[in-house]
Amino acid sequence: MENTEIVDADRLIADVQFDDRGLVPAIAQDHQTGRVLMMAWMNAESLAETVRTGRVVYWSRSRKALWRKGDTSGHIQRLVSLQLDCDGDTLLLQVDQTGPACHTGRTACFFRSPTATGWEIVD
Amino acid sequence: MENTEIVDADRLIADVQFDDRGLVPAIAQDHQTGRVLMMAWMNAESLAETVRTGRVVYWSRSRKALWRKGDTSGHIQRLVSLQLDCDGDTLLLQVDQTGPACHTGRTACFFRSPTATGWEIVD
Repeated sequence: MENTEIVDADRLIADVQFDDRGLVPAIAQDHQTGRVLMMAWMNAESLAETVRTGRVVYWSRSRKALWRKGDTSGHIQRLVSLQLDCDGDTLLLQVDQTGPACHTGRTACFFRSPTATGWEIVD
Repeated sequence: MENTEIVDADRLIADVQFDDRGLVPAIAQDHQTGRVLMMAWMNAESLAETVRTGRVVYWSRSRKALWRKGDTSGHIQRLVSLQLDCDGDTLLLQVDQTGPACHTGRTACFFRSPTATGWEIVD
């Protein structure tokens, strides 16, 4: 992130409204194309590590563990900038995405749209 | 939406993974600028009405009621296109936003970024 060195992660976390599971939704957007790549969840620890290291870390609800995106696939996300919304309960991350963001190998996770026969792959 | 008339809302809803509260996160993105405007929640009823009418309707968790965005402010959202993510548990909406999306009067709800003194308004 542009100013990682001057950011106090604990201070930031104090103003985030985590839900009753201790999580907040985090939307990742490609900082160059503007494409919304994915949405995942962060807990306080993953947000702190993301801010401190500049590499995006989520919380995996299925594995109940920190998810350092790209550890397995190599498809890491570097944090370029970060915003908190008006209610303090959603994060928006502009990221520099290495490779595809989606586990399906697609650029982004949002690749199905409504058709007459239901959701169909459009990308 | 481009093809509203041919979309079967019930069919779409059947493939969405609503959470244990019956909700799914819905990210609204300006279809022209690519800016992420806000994130809110939809239940099956609000998604169905959104698809059928082409006007975006959320579920207000605080009021526990359908939230036809813009009913009070006039700042409605017209649905331009819609995507479901790979896991089926997050929606992305490209919208035509009338006026500001945020209740603060700002274009988008994501207007605070990290600084040395915490989250500060950057927009």
